[in-house]
Amino acid sequence: MKHTLESIAKLAGVSRGTVSRVVNDQPGVKPEVRDKVLSLIKQTGYVPHPQARSLAGGKTGNIGVMVFGQNPNFLSHHIFYEVLQGLQIASAADGYDLVLFANRMDSDRDYWKQIALRQKVDGLIIMGEHIQQEYLLFYRQQQIPYVLVGKRSYDHLPLACVTSNYRDGAYQATKHLLERGRRNIVYIQGLLHTYHENERFAGYYQALAEAGTHVDPSLIIDGLADQAAARLQMKLLIERNIRFDGVFAANDLMAFGAMESLLAHGFRLPQDVAVVGYDDIQAAPYVSPPLTTVHQDKLGLGREAIRLLLDMLRGELGENESKDVFIKNELIVRGST
Amino acid sequence: MKHTLESIAKLAGVSRGTVSRVVNDQPGVKPEVRDKVLSLIKQTGYVPHPQARSLAGGKTGNIGVMVFGQNPNFLSHHIFYEVLQGLQIASAADGYDLVLFANRMDSDRDYWKQIALRQKVDGLIIMGEHIQQEYLLFYRQQQIPYVLVGKRSYDHLPLACVTSNYRDGAYQATKHLLERGRRNIVYIQGLLHTYHENERFAGYYQALAEAGTHVDPSLIIDGLADQAAARLQMKLLIERNIRFDGVFAANDLMAFGAMESLLAHGFRLPQDVAVVGYDDIQAAPYVSPPLTTVHQDKLGLGREAIRLLLDMLRGELGENESKDVFIKNELIVRGST
Repeated sequence: MKHTLESIAKLAGVSRGTVSRVVNDQPGVKPEVRDKVLSLIKQTGYVPHPQARSLAGGKTGNIGVMVFGQNPNFLSHHIFYEVLQGLQIASAADGYDLVLFANRMDSDRDYWKQIALRQKVDGLIIMGEHIQQEYLLFYRQQQIPYVLVGKRSYDHLPLACVTSNYRDGAYQATKHLLERGRRNIVYIQGLLHTYHENERFAGYYQALAEAGTHVDPSLIIDGLADQAAARLQMKLLIERNIRFDGVFAANDLMAFGAMESLLAHGFRLPQDVAVVGYDDIQAAPYVSPPLTTVHQDKLGLGREAIRLLLDMLRGELGENESKDVFIKNELIVRGST
Repeated sequence: MKHTLESIAKLAGVSRGTVSRVVNDQPGVKPEVRDKVLSLIKQTGYVPHPQARSLAGGKTGNIGVMVFGQNPNFLSHHIFYEVLQGLQIASAADGYDLVLFANRMDSDRDYWKQIALRQKVDGLIIMGEHIQQEYLLFYRQQQIPYVLVGKRSYDHLPLACVTSNYRDGAYQATKHLLERGRRNIVYIQGLLHTYHENERFAGYYQALAEAGTHVDPSLIIDGLADQAAARLQMKLLIERNIRFDGVFAANDLMAFGAMESLLAHGFRLPQDVAVVGYDDIQAAPYVSPPLTTVHQDKLGLGREAIRLLLDMLRGELGENESKDVFIKNELIVRGST
């Protein structure tokens, strides 16, 4: 026999509404009645129908993941899928399923709005390079709690964000090069005017300042977060005969591009030039020499984002509170330094 | 004003049930009434509440992805996240959201059953090394249509499966080594007694047979699908002084392990030994020399799996029909051959 809300209510000798309140963990049920219903649910193996749960309690048991970006292959991005893994493990541990919304930016421009109106989720984790304040204001208006992975700032809009501590990561990377005796350290920038790029530059600046040196503008090159662009910019730098003995690239792919140009011009790595990347992508240990890099704790980013969202869902964190959680990044030393 | 089923019904001068039938695309509504309701829905911007849709039509607009495995970090697996990407793109294109169920094998052993009973999805995509016939029979009994990624066979249980054409991929890899003039080709096996391993061995066998040679058992080594195991087995093979000039490894990580032992023993790659892998993982172009390998079309696997499932949901493919779709794999030639 397949049990329903009705059949459980009948067995318990209570109303349908009482069973619904127990199922949805709502007040207004005497403890002894609650215990009786819960024990019958256990005995019968009754599984509440999700719609019954939703209509009664407004709870879907789902957490949505919304990615605002242009790249339809966003999951293949070397960071994203591991963050998703962290989200999945942490949400499953608390009994939530993940609903993956994403990247219909081109095909269906108001999809970000639809997912709120459809009420498929209890809360949202929001990621991606194309988040706009408009979206966040709308979700707040619809009373959908959300947490951002990757810090954003908007005027008068308090946000809960989980972010890698890029400043400290870049500081560690630069300090490591200084400790290896390097004094002329090239910095290959990623996408300019983003929070994480500004933070990385600040970490590079801080480590140099502590060592008593200063940023040399001729050593700052623009890699556009892209391997081929970094390869070209490094080639141009070498051809300008500018002296340097270290390279810190804002991501691993740019470090790979720089290494290609350095090797092509006969530099020995790390004897002539030591190279450090950022991210620790899958390929980092496999290049020659293996790349020293700053490991992002992507699982940790996902895990903390879910923790904050669950705090909101339980009322332990206000949806209008500002909250920043920074995840520590760790330097991994390999053969390139 | 926020519109509801009721307010649309009132505006249209019809019953709530009629609007529900239109929203759920069910029969029993006169064309002119249907048109009127649809036009009002468009004018008002009304978005049907998912629970209203579900209770009336039994449709959630969700496709579930269920992964049966032991590795809690299944998303980080070099194949899985790209298959998920294919699933996401294809399901989003048809208006479905993906619900990610997974890997609560240890913590919650009947979770695979709960997700069926909770009716959160219209159908399932099933993956992973630990699928059991019991699970599939249960989903069938619950009338949840499903498609498998990665072929499985059970007695008397017709299945729809989408699978890489491993036999052809291994055939291409071995033929390429033969065309490079190699005659003594080591095969490094992955996990034995699996469908894909059997198929790869068959492709290796077929290419050798066509070239008029035969499988030499002393050239078959057991890499357990693991980089360190392959490194060790290759070392032992070299120390046995067995002559060979080519290596085909059943995955890229085993190819990496074999290359490490070959380089450590002074072999020149590819002059002395040419090496081919399988999968084309992110690191494959970055090793030295860059690895020639068989590229798995992971996006294609995901896309085809959704296509089959949507065919089932539309009634164009029976849930009890056997159907196999094979996705072509392509040899990518790089410096290791």
